[in-house]
Amino acid sequence: MPIPVPAADELARLLGARFSLAQADRELHGGSETYHSAPPPEAVVWPVSTEEVSAIMRICHQHRIPVIGWGTGTSLEGHALALHGGIVMDLMKMDRVLDIRAGDLQVSVQPGVTREALNTELRATGLFFPVDPGANASLGGMAATRASGTAAVRYGTMRDNVLALEVVLADGTVIRTGTRAAKSSAGLDLTALFVGSEGTLGIITELTLRLHGQPEEVAAAVCAFGTLEEAVECVTATIQMGIPMARIEFVDGDAARAFNLQNGTSLHEGPHLMVEFHGSPASVKDDASKFGELAADFGGQGFDWATTPAERAALWRMRHGAYRACLALRPGATAVVTDVCVPMSHLAAAVAAAAEDISSEGLLGPMVGHVGDGNFHSQLLVMPGNAEELAAAKRVATRMAERALAVGGTITGEHGVGVGKRPLMRAQHGAAIGVMAAIKAALDPDNIMNPGKMIPETN
Amino acid sequence: MPIPVPAADELARLLGARFSLAQADRELHGGSETYHSAPPPEAVVWPVSTEEVSAIMRICHQHRIPVIGWGTGTSLEGHALALHGGIVMDLMKMDRVLDIRAGDLQVSVQPGVTREALNTELRATGLFFPVDPGANASLGGMAATRASGTAAVRYGTMRDNVLALEVVLADGTVIRTGTRAAKSSAGLDLTALFVGSEGTLGIITELTLRLHGQPEEVAAAVCAFGTLEEAVECVTATIQMGIPMARIEFVDGDAARAFNLQNGTSLHEGPHLMVEFHGSPASVKDDASKFGELAADFGGQGFDWATTPAERAALWRMRHGAYRACLALRPGATAVVTDVCVPMSHLAAAVAAAAEDISSEGLLGPMVGHVGDGNFHSQLLVMPGNAEELAAAKRVATRMAERALAVGGTITGEHGVGVGKRPLMRAQHGAAIGVMAAIKAALDPDNIMNPGKMIPETN
Repeated sequence: MPIPVPAADELARLLGARFSLAQADRELHGGSETYHSAPPPEAVVWPVSTEEVSAIMRICHQHRIPVIGWGTGTSLEGHALALHGGIVMDLMKMDRVLDIRAGDLQVSVQPGVTREALNTELRATGLFFPVDPGANASLGGMAATRASGTAAVRYGTMRDNVLALEVVLADGTVIRTGTRAAKSSAGLDLTALFVGSEGTLGIITELTLRLHGQPEEVAAAVCAFGTLEEAVECVTATIQMGIPMARIEFVDGDAARAFNLQNGTSLHEGPHLMVEFHGSPASVKDDASKFGELAADFGGQGFDWATTPAERAALWRMRHGAYRACLALRPGATAVVTDVCVPMSHLAAAVAAAAEDISSEGLLGPMVGHVGDGNFHSQLLVMPGNAEELAAAKRVATRMAERALAVGGTITGEHGVGVGKRPLMRAQHGAAIGVMAAIKAALDPDNIMNPGKMIPETN
Repeated sequence: MPIPVPAADELARLLGARFSLAQADRELHGGSETYHSAPPPEAVVWPVSTEEVSAIMRICHQHRIPVIGWGTGTSLEGHALALHGGIVMDLMKMDRVLDIRAGDLQVSVQPGVTREALNTELRATGLFFPVDPGANASLGGMAATRASGTAAVRYGTMRDNVLALEVVLADGTVIRTGTRAAKSSAGLDLTALFVGSEGTLGIITELTLRLHGQPEEVAAAVCAFGTLEEAVECVTATIQMGIPMARIEFVDGDAARAFNLQNGTSLHEGPHLMVEFHGSPASVKDDASKFGELAADFGGQGFDWATTPAERAALWRMRHGAYRACLALRPGATAVVTDVCVPMSHLAAAVAAAAEDISSEGLLGPMVGHVGDGNFHSQLLVMPGNAEELAAAKRVATRMAERALAVGGTITGEHGVGVGKRPLMRAQHGAAIGVMAAIKAALDPDNIMNPGKMIPETN
């Protein structure tokens, strides 16, 4: 349904050239990083202030036009597709770091600041923002999808690192959630409600984030294991001994092969752990040596320590490049990327079952994971247009989710629901879906905020 | 308004002697730890299962009878007073530790398990539950009020340590929020919504909690400072250097005097820090020695290290006994206990302003605080029946909250809203109160869940 003419006129008056009906702009804001697709939105807007976001929402509210927030477009479950038409609101022009409060370990930013841009800005302060999903995503998008990533085992996810938000609601009302205090018990935790709400309850226009001190010492390493079970048991033992790890990632044999092809490395093409320790020189030395002993106990071999910043950067660039590297394993392929998260004690079995399933469906699907929190990913490579492969990949993804639920886990640890995981929401949440739907209906009665996403009860 | 006869009959049939209209039972469940008061509830119920809680809620929902959850009765802001009559639901018979999953660092408990009972149960596992508000509160109550306490600087608050909940809603519907995975991005964060909801949205009937490894080494110390500013600057420097502290508390001169009177100690009657470090023997030694150097830089004197478990226990028993010790400074007094939380950089000024205010009102009000997260408390001692003193104490508490808001802080860091902080909620949250009220109305349209509390818009 095209934008009604009076609404288009109002938006054009408000925004000038920052309101576009052009095909090219719509297509740029209608895609998806993965296999999910939908027709492009009817229009794109680029607000530059909270006031403009509020004014846009008032217009769209009046005319019942769907509004979908947009950051860097790197979400993996089709979160920002315009399923019911409407307007995509691109927030990347709201990209200012507003206020670094180093003494309070806090920063306030607009939603279009990316995590790399923020960390560049912070470099001189001795502080950094640790949440790192790999992609150089916008912080607004990361909050909206409750992103986490490789450093979550030490520093937490967006849930833990967003202190306060400014949000524009469906009717244009501007609210502030949370405070600048480190904690609060003053009322309902609206910050946590909007973090992970995937644009279904409002548009985030400002974030107050927790910062952390850049560690005095960092040590990273990669280490091969004979089997995934041994690698996972090593991690479990490490965590139970209370050895603080900043990152602990596993990559399977296919992913190791992808890394070798992409980076010219010569990793053994079997399971690996990639680890990083942060702390004082004394504690890092102590932690790393204890971990080394544990790894040896579980058959870890060929420890390769990255001691210089450049070597460490190369190591994590390799890990963060996993998505592209794995795509390159099968030229021309696109990917069904899926993630689940299970209690640690079920991780090895869950990964093994997924591997068997991928293989019995005849698919290539490298796996990587944040093994410190039980979260793992499979990137199922399918050729565009091959309906059989796509169906097989979706079956694998669904069974991964169902097995996660069977052991008390979740259908997605960090990618979010979007379109892709929506059919599984009822299986996870049961009657609690009714609570989510009631909250959605209370805050967005006309269902204009990213309709068709996340909560299955809504359209 | 008395319980309607048909409802009383149904409850009696359902619960037998675990439904009581007796004056003594009602009075035992109608009090408050502090100066807040209200007439007792009309009745008390003691369910023993989720099914009973659900059946009670169905009856109360049908007859529109208010229901107020009750744990150990140790809340400080009148959270469990029966302001609008109705039934108090005492959950202390639901006191089973259901399932310790040591490999996953998790435990599932019923709401009536106290934190000390849980830690006794966990002793042999090498794990512990760290949230420690001082009182031996029930874990259900601690979740409902988003409790925190002395160890929050290292291990987080209830917000961070509750993974999943079972909740009975106003109409008796039983839902489950969260999962046993360490993280999830599958939908709205209902766990965070119910943690801190103070019984206004539902009754918590089961909790899944995160556990932590008992630290290999623990070192605790108390150290005197010349001024509060120096003590706080020392803490700020410690945090910015990334030295991980497990606890870091300040006590002012009046509190030190109370400790001496109560415990026969001979602390200098000025500002002190009480600290604790957790970790490996090497890291604790390193952390403690660095902290010692920093403390010396800021004028810290008379470092007294508690090296044995018994000495440490005595130290923290003294701190946790602050409430009783301070009451004893003025025999016969009751207390207006208030807490606020501010960004760290404003802590010294906020405490100094409160001290001046207390003194200029002619009150005695010792202060203690969780200085690592900017949270501090004043315990304003007033004589029962002295309306002038009570009014003065309330003025002080209100101004503390207003000053906290002026620097971006919160009206309560850990005590919660209850009755006492309700008049200040709008000042903190502005238009966001409308969102809280909309959620309350969506989940509890008849307003039977702990009515008259927390959200000012509801009755």
